[in-house]
Amino acid sequence: MAAKKTIEGNMLIAQSGGPTAVINQSLIGAVMEAKKHAAIKNIYGALHGIQGILDENLIDLKKESDRTLNAVAGTPSSALGSVRRKPTPADCTAIFQVLEKYNVRYFFYIGGNDTAETTHIINEEAKKSKYQLRCFHICKTIDNDLRQNDHTPGFGSAGKFVAQAFMGDDLDNRALRGVKINVIMGRHAGFLTAAAALARKNEDDGPHLIYLPERPFAMGRFIKDVKAVYKRLGRCVIAVSEGISDSRGTPIVVKGASSKEVDAHGNVQLSGTGALGDILAQEIKDKTGITRVRADTFGYLQRSFAGCVSETDAREAFGVGATAVKESISGNKDGSIAIKRKPGATYAVEFKRVPLRSVARETQHMPDKFINAEGNHVTQAFIDYAKPIIGKLPKVGRFRAVQVKKIK
Amino acid sequence: MAAKKTIEGNMLIAQSGGPTAVINQSLIGAVMEAKKHAAIKNIYGALHGIQGILDENLIDLKKESDRTLNAVAGTPSSALGSVRRKPTPADCTAIFQVLEKYNVRYFFYIGGNDTAETTHIINEEAKKSKYQLRCFHICKTIDNDLRQNDHTPGFGSAGKFVAQAFMGDDLDNRALRGVKINVIMGRHAGFLTAAAALARKNEDDGPHLIYLPERPFAMGRFIKDVKAVYKRLGRCVIAVSEGISDSRGTPIVVKGASSKEVDAHGNVQLSGTGALGDILAQEIKDKTGITRVRADTFGYLQRSFAGCVSETDAREAFGVGATAVKESISGNKDGSIAIKRKPGATYAVEFKRVPLRSVARETQHMPDKFINAEGNHVTQAFIDYAKPIIGKLPKVGRFRAVQVKKIK
Repeated sequence: MAAKKTIEGNMLIAQSGGPTAVINQSLIGAVMEAKKHAAIKNIYGALHGIQGILDENLIDLKKESDRTLNAVAGTPSSALGSVRRKPTPADCTAIFQVLEKYNVRYFFYIGGNDTAETTHIINEEAKKSKYQLRCFHICKTIDNDLRQNDHTPGFGSAGKFVAQAFMGDDLDNRALRGVKINVIMGRHAGFLTAAAALARKNEDDGPHLIYLPERPFAMGRFIKDVKAVYKRLGRCVIAVSEGISDSRGTPIVVKGASSKEVDAHGNVQLSGTGALGDILAQEIKDKTGITRVRADTFGYLQRSFAGCVSETDAREAFGVGATAVKESISGNKDGSIAIKRKPGATYAVEFKRVPLRSVARETQHMPDKFINAEGNHVTQAFIDYAKPIIGKLPKVGRFRAVQVKKIK
Repeated sequence: MAAKKTIEGNMLIAQSGGPTAVINQSLIGAVMEAKKHAAIKNIYGALHGIQGILDENLIDLKKESDRTLNAVAGTPSSALGSVRRKPTPADCTAIFQVLEKYNVRYFFYIGGNDTAETTHIINEEAKKSKYQLRCFHICKTIDNDLRQNDHTPGFGSAGKFVAQAFMGDDLDNRALRGVKINVIMGRHAGFLTAAAALARKNEDDGPHLIYLPERPFAMGRFIKDVKAVYKRLGRCVIAVSEGISDSRGTPIVVKGASSKEVDAHGNVQLSGTGALGDILAQEIKDKTGITRVRADTFGYLQRSFAGCVSETDAREAFGVGATAVKESISGNKDGSIAIKRKPGATYAVEFKRVPLRSVARETQHMPDKFINAEGNHVTQAFIDYAKPIIGKLPKVGRFRAVQVKKIK
């Protein structure tokens, strides 16, 4: 049955949006799987996403050795290059001319919800033109905010980086006390910021406060929270999402900063600047009298740091890529491959084909059950959810610290 | 001979200054060694350096299990807590009263050059008071700027973090092109910033430009350098030391920022703020017309990230701590333990006792042979020097990228 539906032709794969530590696992998962199927002739990689298609800037992935493929799989950031271009209707027409010219019948596009939307548009154009195309979106995003997915490839490794950073930084703050703010990526979804909570082992470990874009940020409340923790522990470690906004939805960084750079999708630039951390640190200094207040912005390190990968994340990213090709070969015309968690006490997932439109455009947020009532930390339900995705963390030790009796 | 000079009494150890990823290796190295010697009775750890001595806030390190000691050795950041307090003459008198009261005859203080100075002052006071004290400084600093040392414990792991960060970030910048600035710790010495160069494998890999505090920073030259790289590669990754200063010695961050926080040693705060990166990014945007310009400040992550340790660094840090105790037991009264590199093609070091004063106060800088003629990168001599200290880095792969012939 399935064989009848299989069409012969070339395959084209591309990567889009922000890189992740495991986005090449998905790429190589798809390429390795494709090499098993005779229906797929040439395997082309477009450089820098749809830009590479428009420019006919393609590379021949069948010319890469297995050794290279394996090495690239373990390498962070998009090996084919990425792009943040949203195709216009004219672009879509041009893309088809290229796909047709190169007899591309299998198209795979790795990326987030914007990429799913692009894939959907290309697929619709193919249908209109009655061009036979297998058109699949392969999910990725460190933000973990794609609909249909229990979680997304890239989140586990970025979350592991955030957790390891907080483990070390909290110990640093224990050694030299004060207030420490760390700003984490996440415009609308707080999953990655919340991952900081996995750094905690002891009751007094940081992060002591976590602020997510899912809850309106009020400066007064923030200062009150910081004061309370500082009074109790003599220090305070804080995780803040770059996207925190006030009750009217205005990002805190925009209120305090002059930068108004906007990307191709209409988003204001939040990353690649230390402004939010500096604004919050200044506010604490001004309002609390605490003198040692520091802020770091994790920035791009969290999405492509070499040597910090969740094994679960790497395995799943590969699986999602391979599944997309399997689905396309088994006769399915289009879709996005989503990660679904199986019910039960033991962590297990399956990869399911879902409609392209169901992943495109809109994103999902942290559910209420993952955020505490005060809106300044996560719940145990979040920890249970995130732990298996992020995987093993380094072991750290602490002295029993038996006090020596003071000599009078 | 040596046994005759050995005095019986208690040991006290403390940590000072900025934490490192391996500072506890030195602590545990000293404690493990001390446990072998009958002359050393109790082993006390002072919490938060000399502050803990002054407050008689001591813990009993003989009450810690070997399992805990080993776990703490592998844990980043000062397990005893740290301090940035410079003792006054009155403090020194008070410190002796405590040492005498607790019959402390072996004193070890782990830290950088400020700590060596403090140890030296304490030692001089001991001599004046004719109080029998074995007084040793155990070196550490991620800045790698202690005199007498080929390199210092903490640098290797921090350098490894910086190199891994640049490996990933350069791949990120290849995927989404633009200019990327990364600001690295280092007030006067550029070793840690220079470590970014170890990320390079291919000729076109970043960092493409490296700016160190050892060379005056001129904005015009900087802009010219960035333009040239951007013209050649369509992108540019830059490593900048937080301490870069103009030809008159004024830090660039001070010229552009309002923050003037000064620490106990009279230093202006450079870390814990994203200001320098933002200043440089804005300048590039204004002067080059390049639109995608981003800046990250690595901040505190580079000195205490959990799970990024150079094995060489960990081993040597342990060795320096153990050597200090051995030297004190073998009859030597005082000193600092320095790492000396043995001549020869194969990397090997030895730990040597040097005078406390020879390490105190002043620091050393990158030698001229490590900096290129243009003052915007490092030389092969630096790479050869730093490679064995930083150790193994993750393997990354790249496609051969055989172009598909364009169809006319």
